[in-house]
Amino acid sequence: MTVKQLSLPELADACAASGVTGVGLWREPVQAYGVRAAAKLVRDAGLTVTTLCRGGFLTAISPAERAEAIADNRRAVDEAAALGTDTLVLVSGGLPAGSKDLPGARERIADALAELGPYAEEHGVRLAIEPLHPMYAADRCVVSTLTQALDLAERFPAHQVGVAVDTYHVWWDDQAPAQIARAGAGDRIHTFQLADWTTPLPEGVLNGRGQLGDGAIDLRAWQAHVEAAGYTGPIEVELFNDGLWARDGREVLTETTERFRAHTSP
Amino acid sequence: MTVKQLSLPELADACAASGVTGVGLWREPVQAYGVRAAAKLVRDAGLTVTTLCRGGFLTAISPAERAEAIADNRRAVDEAAALGTDTLVLVSGGLPAGSKDLPGARERIADALAELGPYAEEHGVRLAIEPLHPMYAADRCVVSTLTQALDLAERFPAHQVGVAVDTYHVWWDDQAPAQIARAGAGDRIHTFQLADWTTPLPEGVLNGRGQLGDGAIDLRAWQAHVEAAGYTGPIEVELFNDGLWARDGREVLTETTERFRAHTSP
Repeated sequence: MTVKQLSLPELADACAASGVTGVGLWREPVQAYGVRAAAKLVRDAGLTVTTLCRGGFLTAISPAERAEAIADNRRAVDEAAALGTDTLVLVSGGLPAGSKDLPGARERIADALAELGPYAEEHGVRLAIEPLHPMYAADRCVVSTLTQALDLAERFPAHQVGVAVDTYHVWWDDQAPAQIARAGAGDRIHTFQLADWTTPLPEGVLNGRGQLGDGAIDLRAWQAHVEAAGYTGPIEVELFNDGLWARDGREVLTETTERFRAHTSP
Repeated sequence: MTVKQLSLPELADACAASGVTGVGLWREPVQAYGVRAAAKLVRDAGLTVTTLCRGGFLTAISPAERAEAIADNRRAVDEAAALGTDTLVLVSGGLPAGSKDLPGARERIADALAELGPYAEEHGVRLAIEPLHPMYAADRCVVSTLTQALDLAERFPAHQVGVAVDTYHVWWDDQAPAQIARAGAGDRIHTFQLADWTTPLPEGVLNGRGQLGDGAIDLRAWQAHVEAAGYTGPIEVELFNDGLWARDGREVLTETTERFRAHTSP
């Protein structure tokens, strides 16, 4: 998503040229390219698919909408398995129209995970609940903190449900380091993502994630937290940024790898 | 601030016409009108000044900037006392330019409160730390939760330092109800403010607070939380909203009182 202006073949080429050996993919471009074709493309390019984004949106109240959401998440699990990644990231969903009931929405997520967790396990895929920044609580994700994400995840086996730790979403939270330790102790850190926090936020607050090093987040400190918790998996960079998307994708990928080296520990 | 398009005399008139008996004032219009003149105006109108907004911005590192901030907060205490309100609301301040050290910034706030608390007490004023929504952590307020605000406040006597509970800032936080109980038990709820959460957020995320009832927040539930915690003080409505500011201020005040009655309990 950081370089969504690149097609999948361009992305595979650019990763090879930049020495990037793993990539997190999003469902829409994969579906547009064809899941099997995308899987072959990245496999032939020697790329590991680190995660698939995203399942989720599990907070609907109406039975028909819930059934559709579950079915779509099963398809997302299938796609993850076909791509050879073991992790499907979940954006859990916001409040249904007219509802003000955050606890109820969170319980409906748990109900859905009870169905999806075993299905994911059968396909060798782990679900990663991503707590999103509290500014998305109404319209995108009622799971706002790692504490809440782990409270949900721990109702299920760790090989079914864990969490995604994204610096953009948790950096402000003084309880997050202890929750990362909790997640690590339970083997539930299913991915670790970097983005920096820059201001002012753009309208809609979706596409203003900062290039690494441009913002307020001590990225190296968060890397140290997840590593101290035992995390040894890939570190993903996920920048939604209109400014980066307007530039040449290969140039952005090169810049991002340089920033990654400058702002993380080896 | 909800009807900042009204001058102070217009505000006093409109409050009398709407049956509003208390008003929270902001420093800038009070200073422009003259503190003594403003105090006489609201007193003659029979209005109680519920709070003065705002002191704070206590996170600077350089000694000169820190000294200036402390001096300005002493003036804010003086103004609060002159207006006859017992509560000065604090927006604590964001990260200084180039800093990524949230814990350090929070400690500097504590250092400043140690100076300001006794000064406020001498003037019959209580300081109210307002946790701001985490989306303001970088540039406006490193105190993002009631938990953090109380961790700071409880280092000082309750009649010196408490908290401001604003639904806009805390509504997403499942720990906030317990923290409201903690604050009430310690007699530290120094004001309670209402605003609703509407999306999409505007650029800069400052002036998109929703009119009561237009958004995702169960205002009556939060009122019940503060009342269960023993709070018997005024309920303020604080809407920063470009749409409301563009309208006739008296009409907005009337609408707001109607919304208040519709979305709170008697």
